[in-house]
Amino acid sequence: MRKGELTRQRIIAQAAPIFNQRGFAGCSMQDVMEATGLEKGGLYRHFSSKEELAAEAFRYAWDRAVKVRSDNLDRSHGPMAQLRSLIKQFVETPSVVRGGCPLMNTAVDSDDGNAVLRSLALNGIRDWRTRISAVVEEGILSGEIRKKTVPRAVANTLIAGLEGALMISRLEGTKTALLDAQQSLETMLDCIATR
Amino acid sequence: MRKGELTRQRIIAQAAPIFNQRGFAGCSMQDVMEATGLEKGGLYRHFSSKEELAAEAFRYAWDRAVKVRSDNLDRSHGPMAQLRSLIKQFVETPSVVRGGCPLMNTAVDSDDGNAVLRSLALNGIRDWRTRISAVVEEGILSGEIRKKTVPRAVANTLIAGLEGALMISRLEGTKTALLDAQQSLETMLDCIATR
Repeated sequence: MRKGELTRQRIIAQAAPIFNQRGFAGCSMQDVMEATGLEKGGLYRHFSSKEELAAEAFRYAWDRAVKVRSDNLDRSHGPMAQLRSLIKQFVETPSVVRGGCPLMNTAVDSDDGNAVLRSLALNGIRDWRTRISAVVEEGILSGEIRKKTVPRAVANTLIAGLEGALMISRLEGTKTALLDAQQSLETMLDCIATR
Repeated sequence: MRKGELTRQRIIAQAAPIFNQRGFAGCSMQDVMEATGLEKGGLYRHFSSKEELAAEAFRYAWDRAVKVRSDNLDRSHGPMAQLRSLIKQFVETPSVVRGGCPLMNTAVDSDDGNAVLRSLALNGIRDWRTRISAVVEEGILSGEIRKKTVPRAVANTLIAGLEGALMISRLEGTKTALLDAQQSLETMLDCIATR
């Protein structure tokens, strides 16, 4: 990797937790300059605007969250075990880049705000739902999950329950809401299982 | 109400949707001056700081959300009917003050930020959970809800599921995630019912 590209990657990695914690409006290029030790000229050589940097910071944070949430899943014991391990993984490692889930932060921050970030968050939700829905479909085909189950509804329920619980847990500084969500989502999975 | 108090209330009502949509860092006193038509001096006569105004704006928005979410509940057909009508009410009227749920917005905005707003959001979550838990306890006592049910866990599951679904729905601009959450939360209630 060339030196310029290395610097660019370092800026993104250092800016990601700042945007994730403070949001788009709450993070200034001045904040990023202080965190990276770069001058204004050095920063703008790599990013034409705060919007461009915020978008890259979101992509970086979300890629890492997706990696942590999907890399260690139990894929060898069938779709139901995979869904259970997805819940467990989220509850055990809810936040990879400081500041909580970049998807929820960016969704809430941008739903009335920045259009580029809003569109990235929307793609993030859709990709996540597609991945979970595919596991549910696999379970329906293999006979492990009841035929009448709607994959999209299961995926939305898992995402909403986990993200909502993370919001409560971060606010309270305890894991209680996440553990409560884990238990009720596992019960929901029991209800769609054929055995 | 005296004229000064009326002006103060009008400022809060006009500032609430701005803070709710843009967050604490994204809303300036200049924005509030433009929305209210007041000069800087007029605004600071009523609020000593942006923090004080933001706190009042949150209280105003949250009071209204609580009112809408609890005023029209079905309280005459027992605790289970009340929990179902709570879900229905949230799904049908998710946002009272423009910008979505003030609790989620303020929680996500302040979990790494403003301590006063964080504390208000924390109280909001706790009050909401206490209200739902009381209904579940009533159901356990009346025999409508299974004895082993943990009221706090049911409350956390309802709040997390509804708030998480609202986040997805607002981002996507459709009601799908809220309707999916409604159905799965009602199934969860079926599972804790004794009949």
